[in-house]
Amino acid sequence: MKDILALVEPHLREVDAAIHRQCEAFDPAISGYVAYALGSSGKRLRPALALLVGGATVGVTSRHVDLAVILEMIHLATLVHDDIMDGADTRRGQPTPNARWGNAITVLLGDCLFAHALDLATNFDDAEISRKIARAATAVCTGEILQTQRRFDLNLSHADYFRIIELKTAALFACAAELGVLVGKGDPAVAENLRQFGLKLGTAYQIYDDCLDLAGDEDKAGKTLGTDLKKGKLTLPLLDLLRDAPPADLAVYSQMILRAEDPESIALTAAVRRSGSLKRAIATAVELIEDARVQLAVLPPSPYGEALHAIAQKVSEMIQRFGERPA
Amino acid sequence: MKDILALVEPHLREVDAAIHRQCEAFDPAISGYVAYALGSSGKRLRPALALLVGGATVGVTSRHVDLAVILEMIHLATLVHDDIMDGADTRRGQPTPNARWGNAITVLLGDCLFAHALDLATNFDDAEISRKIARAATAVCTGEILQTQRRFDLNLSHADYFRIIELKTAALFACAAELGVLVGKGDPAVAENLRQFGLKLGTAYQIYDDCLDLAGDEDKAGKTLGTDLKKGKLTLPLLDLLRDAPPADLAVYSQMILRAEDPESIALTAAVRRSGSLKRAIATAVELIEDARVQLAVLPPSPYGEALHAIAQKVSEMIQRFGERPA
Repeated sequence: MKDILALVEPHLREVDAAIHRQCEAFDPAISGYVAYALGSSGKRLRPALALLVGGATVGVTSRHVDLAVILEMIHLATLVHDDIMDGADTRRGQPTPNARWGNAITVLLGDCLFAHALDLATNFDDAEISRKIARAATAVCTGEILQTQRRFDLNLSHADYFRIIELKTAALFACAAELGVLVGKGDPAVAENLRQFGLKLGTAYQIYDDCLDLAGDEDKAGKTLGTDLKKGKLTLPLLDLLRDAPPADLAVYSQMILRAEDPESIALTAAVRRSGSLKRAIATAVELIEDARVQLAVLPPSPYGEALHAIAQKVSEMIQRFGERPA
Repeated sequence: MKDILALVEPHLREVDAAIHRQCEAFDPAISGYVAYALGSSGKRLRPALALLVGGATVGVTSRHVDLAVILEMIHLATLVHDDIMDGADTRRGQPTPNARWGNAITVLLGDCLFAHALDLATNFDDAEISRKIARAATAVCTGEILQTQRRFDLNLSHADYFRIIELKTAALFACAAELGVLVGKGDPAVAENLRQFGLKLGTAYQIYDDCLDLAGDEDKAGKTLGTDLKKGKLTLPLLDLLRDAPPADLAVYSQMILRAEDPESIALTAAVRRSGSLKRAIATAVELIEDARVQLAVLPPSPYGEALHAIAQKVSEMIQRFGERPA
């Protein structure tokens, strides 16, 4: 991925520097918490998307850097609250804010990051931009609520699942790609294509992440896996397994999902592999990425447009490799 | 208070109706939570302030109603998160959202309300308005963090206390009064006076609320009192008591504050009465209200301006009555 992003590497460094500078905007007594929460250097996927789309349309401007900073801060704010909800102690090898300072301060810390990101969003002279950012933030929280609400809900439909991941993950990708056009005053029709690109890429990415959590290898993934099952999050391979199971198996699988201890997790993982539902979920993600790439046809030829294609290709290959590896 | 607000009663009803209508903006699966959180009919102080200031300057417009809705939603969002942090089971006689649905959904519910309020804020064509709203939201959260951080901190200074209550309470009052001028395109100099009015009134109101929690009568207040001491929140009367206590007493009081069980609470309440520090805190609040009223001199004569004076007067009388009643 690094080679593809080389094109926007200087801008990504600007984004990182600007994110770190945001600490100064907070009360000195809380800037330490903010610095910690903002410091967890993630994959910066949303910033990269906004910057590449900018490059592929009107050129990367300081407004794209501002947009990237805002979207990454919203993402980091949601991670801060996610870790509270999941009771997570570590993220990327570091103690989470809730592990360090408890839930009370961490709820508020997430709120501060959120409010500050939306404050920064008002710096765009066009209120439509800040509105779309605020709506994407609402979407992420709505998706998270729906997911929490439907834990251990064996009646969750495929449509419900797609709605949840579109809201909680893909909406912010879609926002990054759409606004990557609009903050540069690019063509609104192109912006709509790019929004679709982001939405599909984000959805595929979440399906992959869900498959990884269910059937991945912890050492390779570099994070704790199997947490979705324990938290009762029903993801695509499981939903497929349940839909296609003969009645006798269905009862067994349902019981396993509701118990969700280690032996059940192992058995369910084996079942999603055996039944082919893991492979089908992966095929769905790969198809979504193909659909996403079609949207890029509106872009004029440029190295940035090629990089967007290459990212989609790379994610697709990663997903396919995961699908082909032995259990 | 009701007679003073009669002037804006129709607008306050519009605000209430608009707040309830906001539920429709959310995903159907979560609008039930939103309706519950928005339904707790509070005192609507911030809306009243925004509307009266509008009336006293350029006249109440639909923009003032929009402003009132946004500020009340931000206030309600912070209450939702407050109740998580305080582990509160009831508010105004109703189970809190966290008592009904647990902390996970409630964290996200507060986030949704917050993000939606800031989305609505982008409907003002002037980005400066939405920026001030987002900053007030950041201020509230910052104040809450500082307060949480300084629980049981015997080194909390008077300046720290005032900074905390200005951020967590007065900033939103100040925003309501300032923007009550600015959304009507009123004079920025007048807006600054009104901001000061809101800041001082909000600060006085919080001091009063803190005194009530420490030394009030639960039946009259209609809510559980004594919670600040149990949570280690050091409020003005206690800070005064500590500052003026002879060394021997200081050690005793400090131990009492750190233990904070029922007997200590009773003894500390008696001490703040006996030492005169409760009376001094009340005098400070009354003085702040006098300072606040001075700011109203910029307003042209009108029933709305008179109502703002009358509100300040009413709050002042309420505080003084509280100071004069027997223990």
